[in-house]
Amino acid sequence: MKLNNNIISDLKKIVGDDGILLSSADLASYSYDGSCNWQSMPDVVVFPQTTEQVSDIMKLAYENTIPITPRGAGTSLSGGPVPSSGGIVLCTARMNRILEIDEENFAVTAEAGVVLNNMNMELAKRNLFFPPDPQSFLAATIGGCIAVGAGGPYAVKYGVFKHYILGMTIVLANGSIIDIGGNTMKNVTGYDLPQLVCGSEGTLCTVTKIKLRLVPKPKASQTITAVFNDVTNAGNAVHMIKSKGVIPAKIELIDNWVINRVNEITGMGFPSDADAILFFEVDGSPESIKKEEEDVVALCKEAGAEDVWAAKDAEDAMKVWGARRSGFLAIYGNAPTALAEDVTVPTNKISEFLERVKDIRKKYDVEVVIIGHAGDGNLHPTVLTDKKDTEHYERADKAVQELFKTALNLGGAISGEHGIGLEKQRFLKDAISGDEINLLKGIKKIFDPKGILNPGKIWEQ
Amino acid sequence: MKLNNNIISDLKKIVGDDGILLSSADLASYSYDGSCNWQSMPDVVVFPQTTEQVSDIMKLAYENTIPITPRGAGTSLSGGPVPSSGGIVLCTARMNRILEIDEENFAVTAEAGVVLNNMNMELAKRNLFFPPDPQSFLAATIGGCIAVGAGGPYAVKYGVFKHYILGMTIVLANGSIIDIGGNTMKNVTGYDLPQLVCGSEGTLCTVTKIKLRLVPKPKASQTITAVFNDVTNAGNAVHMIKSKGVIPAKIELIDNWVINRVNEITGMGFPSDADAILFFEVDGSPESIKKEEEDVVALCKEAGAEDVWAAKDAEDAMKVWGARRSGFLAIYGNAPTALAEDVTVPTNKISEFLERVKDIRKKYDVEVVIIGHAGDGNLHPTVLTDKKDTEHYERADKAVQELFKTALNLGGAISGEHGIGLEKQRFLKDAISGDEINLLKGIKKIFDPKGILNPGKIWEQ
Repeated sequence: MKLNNNIISDLKKIVGDDGILLSSADLASYSYDGSCNWQSMPDVVVFPQTTEQVSDIMKLAYENTIPITPRGAGTSLSGGPVPSSGGIVLCTARMNRILEIDEENFAVTAEAGVVLNNMNMELAKRNLFFPPDPQSFLAATIGGCIAVGAGGPYAVKYGVFKHYILGMTIVLANGSIIDIGGNTMKNVTGYDLPQLVCGSEGTLCTVTKIKLRLVPKPKASQTITAVFNDVTNAGNAVHMIKSKGVIPAKIELIDNWVINRVNEITGMGFPSDADAILFFEVDGSPESIKKEEEDVVALCKEAGAEDVWAAKDAEDAMKVWGARRSGFLAIYGNAPTALAEDVTVPTNKISEFLERVKDIRKKYDVEVVIIGHAGDGNLHPTVLTDKKDTEHYERADKAVQELFKTALNLGGAISGEHGIGLEKQRFLKDAISGDEINLLKGIKKIFDPKGILNPGKIWEQ
Repeated sequence: MKLNNNIISDLKKIVGDDGILLSSADLASYSYDGSCNWQSMPDVVVFPQTTEQVSDIMKLAYENTIPITPRGAGTSLSGGPVPSSGGIVLCTARMNRILEIDEENFAVTAEAGVVLNNMNMELAKRNLFFPPDPQSFLAATIGGCIAVGAGGPYAVKYGVFKHYILGMTIVLANGSIIDIGGNTMKNVTGYDLPQLVCGSEGTLCTVTKIKLRLVPKPKASQTITAVFNDVTNAGNAVHMIKSKGVIPAKIELIDNWVINRVNEITGMGFPSDADAILFFEVDGSPESIKKEEEDVVALCKEAGAEDVWAAKDAEDAMKVWGARRSGFLAIYGNAPTALAEDVTVPTNKISEFLERVKDIRKKYDVEVVIIGHAGDGNLHPTVLTDKKDTEHYERADKAVQELFKTALNLGGAISGEHGIGLEKQRFLKDAISGDEINLLKGIKKIFDPKGILNPGKIWEQ
């Protein structure tokens, strides 16, 4: 569709002349997401600054049946914020105020466009801690994280975004503004709409404000690195540690390919022939973490680690986590197309999954590299390919299909924290039943009778 | 409505002759809930033993448009399991198998009728811990807890039922059986239906199996008792402790009236003139709890506690928690009608709420006694009255209305863990917006187009 001049003029009235983008060059920047695997041009991008402006934009879109795709920082990896039906991209970048840090009640209220890291920096000053920590935290917005139900390494001990939601302000398809949830963790006043909205990828409503629960910042933490000559042993180590009742805050895994790219980028000098490295963070009281460190070290050795060591100090620990984070950079810098997947398996199936990845790599003759939140079974096997090389891409795509099939067969899920977006629609019916998909579509229709909210996402149309 | 003989005969075919109750005397036992504040007779009670039997019952109810009210142990306090439209009560008492305790992945799968305490005893043998602990845990079923979104004292540190759900098997209104959610904590495959079902009070579907996440049993714990001559100081103590970053596993409060009844029942000999007592449990590693105990003791003293002491040993601690639990027994044993409310307020508003309760008590000349999960702001002010004494009951009802109004004005909720049921329908529109209620009704219609699933609950009809 093409928007007519009246619509554009009405949008300008709502957000001001400097709150709108119309040129092709500008629109192009809002036509893809963090994966760069899909592209679709919007007709217009608007930058509202208030919930009321979002409401006015929604009313206009509703009256004129214009597709509207909410977007935070666009760091999504599943195509969620790609405006695949054109229309309006509603970018929350200017709704970036932290409205309240309530130290007394351990809660923060932020607009949807607040960057996660900006919030975390303010919280740290007050000794407060918001655990969910997607890799994209330096750029990702709170609203975007809510859209996909983001997680991250800290999930092992602390859970994911949905475990921290107290309340939200949302704008419905027809422009109505409502507050859902509230201020207290315990709240069973009707169906739990905030939980329904979390992970709904902008298809039910537009979230403008979020109230999140916080915890006190742990008083101490320690980082441990363990090197394995067999990735299967690393999988076993994760499982043994958790089985002994030791729950580290994070347990991260990188494989041989990633180890070597990380060495190139960071000069960390990890053993280049290691099959896998596990990074652990234990946290809590100074009294308790020493014991947990000892347990992690002993159990890694028992699982067959070649080498295990604790960080010397905070700076050393920071280097380790910086190296871990550089893993994704390494991946995206080393292939024209990276199919970064996001499967989960029960933690006692990690070793088996890693074995199967080796088979898939051989079978399709493609590089499948692994970074993962091993502690909660959320692995990111990434297939390196080139979309322009049709023959190679076809093999890569088959490898991806088999990765999903493998995860499901092992009792896992096709998405742990990235969402379905455009990427995994064709696999949804393998993951959930037709009856469930019909319920999702029914719920969508209740919230979005005209089908204007991020249309074309989650299920095949 | 009256069910015809064909229906009864079909139900017998499904659940067997010993799986059905029909006599008035038997039906009466399923006509009320734990509060005894409402009564409505079902036409029949059935006891299915499998998901397939539940499905067959649902199909029959669907084809014949018969109201169907799922029921666990009936310990609800809000009228949720009362069959207010008659029809079928589907009691899960015989679906009481623990299907799998997956020690490796920290998960348990149980049928809906498993009693929470029975599950907990099995978990304890394996050093596993499922934290949510409603007062009714000795009788309440997992399915009932899911229905209301139950909580309990451990919520302070560990959260409530919704934070532990991995997956469910549900039976839809038309009898379709579907699995929703999965086996891993991270799972963003479409809208989060398990979270929508949790707290939906049997109005969307019937849950037959639940998979819950577990945590390792804390290695050590300590119990602390603090006596206050002013309930407001007790409120302040809660707030000061949490503000210092100390998060006890539980913080429970009883007021003067409850203290004296507890003394009568248990002979604990708590100071009879104390205005309030706080009970704390700190847990974690043996290394960390000593420090937390010291912090709790010091901060209670700073807040003005008259006396604070730690339990001598595990037996001593058990006595303290037994005394705390006897509080509700005391309440129900001391009035013909107890209006046990379930409000929440942000924790820094607890003192203010307690002050307002004193005013309400005077204003309506009724006894309002307080037991509460002070650590998370979930208070149970209970108005003692007699439904048969119209004049007194009217004052009691006005007191309840003002308690709700006060909680909402302080930023709280009208239900923290009991649900809306029959009890709070008339207050729902004060708690959430008309737009939100319309969304709830829309969602209900998607799941239950014929309106047969626990009809008459949550909102006014």
